[in-house]
Amino acid sequence: MPTATLPKHYTDLVSLQRESGTLTSIGALISWDQETYMPSGGATARAEQTSLLAGIIHERNTSKKLGDLIAQCEADSELSDQSTPEGANIREMRRDYDLATKLPTDLVKNLAQAQSEAQEAWKHARANNDFPSFVNDLTKVLDLTREKGECYGYADDGEVYDALINEYEPDTTAKEIESVFTPLRDRLSAFIAELTENGTSPKTDFLHRSIPVEKQHEFGQAITAKLGFDYKTGRLDTTTHPFCSGFGPGDTRMTTRYEQTNFPDAVGSTMHECGHGLYEQGLPKSGDLFGTPLSSAVSLGIHESQSRMWENMVGRSKPFWNYALPVANKIFDNAFSDIDLDTFTKSMNTCTPSFIRVESDESTYNLHVMLRFELERAMINQDLAIKDLPAAWNEKFKNFLGLDVPNDAQGCLQDVHWSFGLVGYFPTYTLGNLYAAQMWETINEQIPNLDSQMEKGEFSSLLTWLRENIHQHGRRYTAAQLCQRATGKPLEADPLMRHLERRVKPAYGI
Amino acid sequence: MPTATLPKHYTDLVSLQRESGTLTSIGALISWDQETYMPSGGATARAEQTSLLAGIIHERNTSKKLGDLIAQCEADSELSDQSTPEGANIREMRRDYDLATKLPTDLVKNLAQAQSEAQEAWKHARANNDFPSFVNDLTKVLDLTREKGECYGYADDGEVYDALINEYEPDTTAKEIESVFTPLRDRLSAFIAELTENGTSPKTDFLHRSIPVEKQHEFGQAITAKLGFDYKTGRLDTTTHPFCSGFGPGDTRMTTRYEQTNFPDAVGSTMHECGHGLYEQGLPKSGDLFGTPLSSAVSLGIHESQSRMWENMVGRSKPFWNYALPVANKIFDNAFSDIDLDTFTKSMNTCTPSFIRVESDESTYNLHVMLRFELERAMINQDLAIKDLPAAWNEKFKNFLGLDVPNDAQGCLQDVHWSFGLVGYFPTYTLGNLYAAQMWETINEQIPNLDSQMEKGEFSSLLTWLRENIHQHGRRYTAAQLCQRATGKPLEADPLMRHLERRVKPAYGI
Repeated sequence: MPTATLPKHYTDLVSLQRESGTLTSIGALISWDQETYMPSGGATARAEQTSLLAGIIHERNTSKKLGDLIAQCEADSELSDQSTPEGANIREMRRDYDLATKLPTDLVKNLAQAQSEAQEAWKHARANNDFPSFVNDLTKVLDLTREKGECYGYADDGEVYDALINEYEPDTTAKEIESVFTPLRDRLSAFIAELTENGTSPKTDFLHRSIPVEKQHEFGQAITAKLGFDYKTGRLDTTTHPFCSGFGPGDTRMTTRYEQTNFPDAVGSTMHECGHGLYEQGLPKSGDLFGTPLSSAVSLGIHESQSRMWENMVGRSKPFWNYALPVANKIFDNAFSDIDLDTFTKSMNTCTPSFIRVESDESTYNLHVMLRFELERAMINQDLAIKDLPAAWNEKFKNFLGLDVPNDAQGCLQDVHWSFGLVGYFPTYTLGNLYAAQMWETINEQIPNLDSQMEKGEFSSLLTWLRENIHQHGRRYTAAQLCQRATGKPLEADPLMRHLERRVKPAYGI
Repeated sequence: MPTATLPKHYTDLVSLQRESGTLTSIGALISWDQETYMPSGGATARAEQTSLLAGIIHERNTSKKLGDLIAQCEADSELSDQSTPEGANIREMRRDYDLATKLPTDLVKNLAQAQSEAQEAWKHARANNDFPSFVNDLTKVLDLTREKGECYGYADDGEVYDALINEYEPDTTAKEIESVFTPLRDRLSAFIAELTENGTSPKTDFLHRSIPVEKQHEFGQAITAKLGFDYKTGRLDTTTHPFCSGFGPGDTRMTTRYEQTNFPDAVGSTMHECGHGLYEQGLPKSGDLFGTPLSSAVSLGIHESQSRMWENMVGRSKPFWNYALPVANKIFDNAFSDIDLDTFTKSMNTCTPSFIRVESDESTYNLHVMLRFELERAMINQDLAIKDLPAAWNEKFKNFLGLDVPNDAQGCLQDVHWSFGLVGYFPTYTLGNLYAAQMWETINEQIPNLDSQMEKGEFSSLLTWLRENIHQHGRRYTAAQLCQRATGKPLEADPLMRHLERRVKPAYGI
């Protein structure tokens, strides 16, 4: 439908959403500033700014005016076709409006209170390796989170977990995730066992050579500019916990971290955030639709697929390092000039079972995630008592990764997520890897000489593919539809397994 | 009145103002980001954020709810004593509310439109040295600005200019300013003529030695920390046009600029902004009153008095450089180790008539300002036709500074202010110098060994005096009251003249 003929209730709706989007982008900026440049003394006032702004945005996002306009558009037969941009936009606005309005105020308040208490309890419990002291608080948060899921609602043949995933990965169910995760889990465990038993770990000591932080930053900027990140509409700064925030049209901020003797950590984190950044820069924010679902990311899983593709599929590949290693040697005064390309690439593809998720490698990471998926699903469905979590964790850990967890601090107490009530969030990490691997196979079929392009530091064909198949659509299609459209198939476990086997086995001489 | 007994209409008013203050502080942050870290591509979206937020704040600041609460408080005899904090706060809230509500929407819109057009016309006129092409736009802006002044209103024996000053320097009139400016102007012109005729210019070439920008930044941070700027609740960053913005409790951002071969420029600009920063950090923002007038700066003139005192009274003094020169030599690898203290101090106290205000020295600066005061007053009072501005400017310039203005680009077209409709703003620069000099005399009487403290790099007595006499009061007293309380006298021209004579004459061997 050409813009000129769009009915007033639709254009009014779009204007209203644009204002909310603009306010949300202000919220993103003040949150970015808090992590980057805010002096420590500003924390209290910043919390007040954040909460006031969130309140104003929430008021707008739950207003009767917004609800009425959405209802008017839904009733308009001219706009009801979801295959049109307008129809899809209205479908997604309805989703957002329902998510924003379905929870009773009391539940929101109680959950916020319980989360805040549980975070403190978690800090204490982790520091003291004392899970029992955390049981009551975690139970309270999970009970309220379950109640939240019941308020959102789910299909008759579904489960409450589905309602919770929906916040992060719309239109996905626990059963669907299970059907992809289970075969992956079993094959991955076997794969890792094989490497451990029959493989030879690659040499990695040289990766810890000392590289000045400023030079690592220079390298990160040079590489990401080459990947296609537009620094006229973006930045790269430093934070403890790297993130990427797309504020809106023309302003995408990435952050990363540096450690003088851990150069690969900065490379991985920078390329990961660059993947998020390229997605944000590729979303259709520049037209009238900024602030509406059409200009936003489809799901956390798809967002993560972008970061993982650049971090892993590109960033650990031999063609990439064929280009990047000379760049590194130039900036780092030949720090790796004695290391040949093959040795260097192998060092970037290790696989070593370990206890902490955020420190784990590309292969074992997924087992950490799948373990959490199974456990949180069991807890939220009341199939697992909270007090029994440590035992269940340790048993699964042994089964999946072959290791005996030494204590709960390095086990079920390591992540803050559950004390926030984040249930249904963990699986999106592995969904991201799965989507990335499946897209990667299609991309390599459609761009057969991609390797030789990357060897020369050319990434524009790859970026163009992502722009056309993923970025430009915003939330027009669901993640599953996007996957089907882009790769011709529903999501499967095989591509990720094939990718890991192709990469990691040679590094272990198998 | 103890907080517990304050009536609900007052505490509601304070809460409402706190929210507006919090939103305003968000506006200050996004504007700071625009000048410091925003990528260029973010400009359009930032303008949209700024304007949306300004609209929300304006709506709150002009709301009936706010007006009703102010009226309720004014009607409450328990709150009417303006010598109490509450009474003063209500008096100032009334002032702000009236300023925000007295202008018809059409006038605000027309003025915004005219300002935007006049700025473009001014850019063109200055670039082409073509004042006639600017006459119509400037006339339009000044006509609308006059109309604005009429809407604000002024005393029966006053003039429309008074209403305009009121935005920047409350409770001051053109006649009051004139009564201080005129004697200063005449004595200053004579003083400058004497220096030019009988003095010997101090040596300054060494000031342009090349100092790396990072080292200048390190020096600026070291010095300002010593002056008392708290870096736990503040920052120093780099911008083209230095400024200082007090976001709110615990967060004050200063910016400065650096030029490799102009070290004194960075020192002056950094110490100037530090003066603003110390005022912002000293305002009573930490309690419940944040966002109300009691937590805000009293006027632009008083704000400027703080920046000028640290920049000039401190930053060009021999005791200060007794402490700071060794610091500079340490950080700058002995760049000035061949320059003795006396020679260095003299180089910081030059006086050379020149054409451009923003490049002028401490003495001549005031003549630039007074010239503008007289001309803008004449224009707004319709005593001077806009087309005759260049001739009037050049004639006064010759009288005040003894120079023939070569062209309008270096004359009446050099500042952007008038195209913004900023009338009544210029005098606050010299009012700042006057307040600073008068306070400085009192401070030196009350802290007789201040010089020897400064020689050792001790500034805490000075800062304490400013905290107690100026900063802590916010807008409780008017600028005139504050001056009277702090110095025992109304504002006079003599202290500034005495200060300049004491400083600059010795530098010229007089």
